[in-house]
Amino acid sequence: MYDVIIIGAGPAGMTAAIYTARKRLNTLVLGKEAGGQMVWSSDVENYTGFSVITGAELTLKFQEHLATLKDSLEVKIGSEVVSLEKNITSFVVEDTAGNQYFSKAVIIASGRSPKHLGIPGESEFFGHGVATCATCDAPLYKKKTVAVVGGGNSALDAALALSKVATLVYIIDINQSLVGDVVLKQKIENSPNVKILNNTKSTAILGDKVVTGLEIEPFGKPREVLKVDGVFIEIGYEPNHKFDELTEKNAKGEIKVDADLMTNVPGLFAAGDINDAWGEQIIIAAGEGAKAAMAVSDYLNKLK
Amino acid sequence: MYDVIIIGAGPAGMTAAIYTARKRLNTLVLGKEAGGQMVWSSDVENYTGFSVITGAELTLKFQEHLATLKDSLEVKIGSEVVSLEKNITSFVVEDTAGNQYFSKAVIIASGRSPKHLGIPGESEFFGHGVATCATCDAPLYKKKTVAVVGGGNSALDAALALSKVATLVYIIDINQSLVGDVVLKQKIENSPNVKILNNTKSTAILGDKVVTGLEIEPFGKPREVLKVDGVFIEIGYEPNHKFDELTEKNAKGEIKVDADLMTNVPGLFAAGDINDAWGEQIIIAAGEGAKAAMAVSDYLNKLK
Repeated sequence: MYDVIIIGAGPAGMTAAIYTARKRLNTLVLGKEAGGQMVWSSDVENYTGFSVITGAELTLKFQEHLATLKDSLEVKIGSEVVSLEKNITSFVVEDTAGNQYFSKAVIIASGRSPKHLGIPGESEFFGHGVATCATCDAPLYKKKTVAVVGGGNSALDAALALSKVATLVYIIDINQSLVGDVVLKQKIENSPNVKILNNTKSTAILGDKVVTGLEIEPFGKPREVLKVDGVFIEIGYEPNHKFDELTEKNAKGEIKVDADLMTNVPGLFAAGDINDAWGEQIIIAAGEGAKAAMAVSDYLNKLK
Repeated sequence: MYDVIIIGAGPAGMTAAIYTARKRLNTLVLGKEAGGQMVWSSDVENYTGFSVITGAELTLKFQEHLATLKDSLEVKIGSEVVSLEKNITSFVVEDTAGNQYFSKAVIIASGRSPKHLGIPGESEFFGHGVATCATCDAPLYKKKTVAVVGGGNSALDAALALSKVATLVYIIDINQSLVGDVVLKQKIENSPNVKILNNTKSTAILGDKVVTGLEIEPFGKPREVLKVDGVFIEIGYEPNHKFDELTEKNAKGEIKVDADLMTNVPGLFAAGDINDAWGEQIIIAAGEGAKAAMAVSDYLNKLK
């Protein structure tokens, strides 16, 4: 029986683990992958203390930090949780491998995942020209033409990363104007090889074995096809909690939490992008991980 | 006229500044000192990404990070704010030097300060044997005897730091048992030169030109004097907001905030240890700084 199981190994889950392990709580971290969304970020410039660092490097720093605490901390990466239940004496967490783990408290820190467009060709060509991670795949598009679908920070971030290798980058934005940070918008405007198409819907991804084009529909105009070699989909996120039927969610599907990040279930907490607390940022998720860990400690102290 | 003035240059204020500057908001940071309480911390082991770093080193990292953003960011260290007012068009912030600054929004991130015991000798011998910062002053007590007053994490942290240089360290704790983290308590128990006196009140600090003793009163027993060369006072904190008569406070004197860290005054936000949000930790304060900055950006966008 663990004191606490942390579901997720992103910034929230890893920080929670540092705090619970330092409090000598017997801690198990179950993570599908280390770093969560952070690992897919290109340059991170807003995690205080690191002026510029890649998401992959920052993930390594976090992992090294956890490695210093192995006395009270077990970390299983590659373990995806499929069910979470609470019986009279404990929580029961099961992963895809059929392993069952038991604990007195649980922190859900499973984050969120990129949304899909749901248009023809999207899943067919995924990995063959359709991508959701510019950091990973941008180098494949050297001197090629690509489209980024979306108009927020992640779309602008992807477009910028791509503009450094590709010949031409389209931003296909369904809204009237981009909604990302001014600093990113300025950088985009200063990139001569980025072309912004606002008021434009993406309707199909075309190709043979690999992507050859993106069919678009500018509002009030006929559909046309852009010749592109790749399509990056950056249109937002959905929370990762298929395993969880215990907690109450809000309209966006985020888990509702109190000020101490406890859910409607006693002993069950949620930290980071998965909860309905405001702001989705690495440093915010990390802060929430610490907060949830301290709340778990208080909760367990009161149990004894 | 600034877009936003940030009062305080600790983890919350500096992180807020990174976020507002990256959003190209014209930002002024007024800080009594860089780093706030962080700069006085000895080894920081729970700021995710840095396994071990001194508070002073981490403060430098934060300052280096801010220095990369000087296009939209002005930082004045040594500027203590004495008044904060709101008129029809802007906030007005004045510092001890009589400078007045104007802005559309303000983030209060002025943190909290160590509490005093209020016993004879305490202020008389401050800096001459009485201290509140083990990191700064521990090296002065090599092969000497010192007392730490308090029983929480900061007291245990101070006692541990002192145990490495002093011959004997007393912990004078008014409570029945220590309340700090288990990991710290274990380290204290494994330090043969640390002696814990629970249920004991500190009643006076004695000395001539420098401290020579601490008068204590164990519950139900007569007062006695411990021969010590130094007394470190580590009994908790009070919020730093003498300049602020605008916001509502809770019973502890913390500024009340919404989920987006806005106070009862539109455009006035509070982040970090100064507010009534849960948890006082570097990573939590930093996360709140980011959150407040994003809320300021939203607030200003709606003004336009």
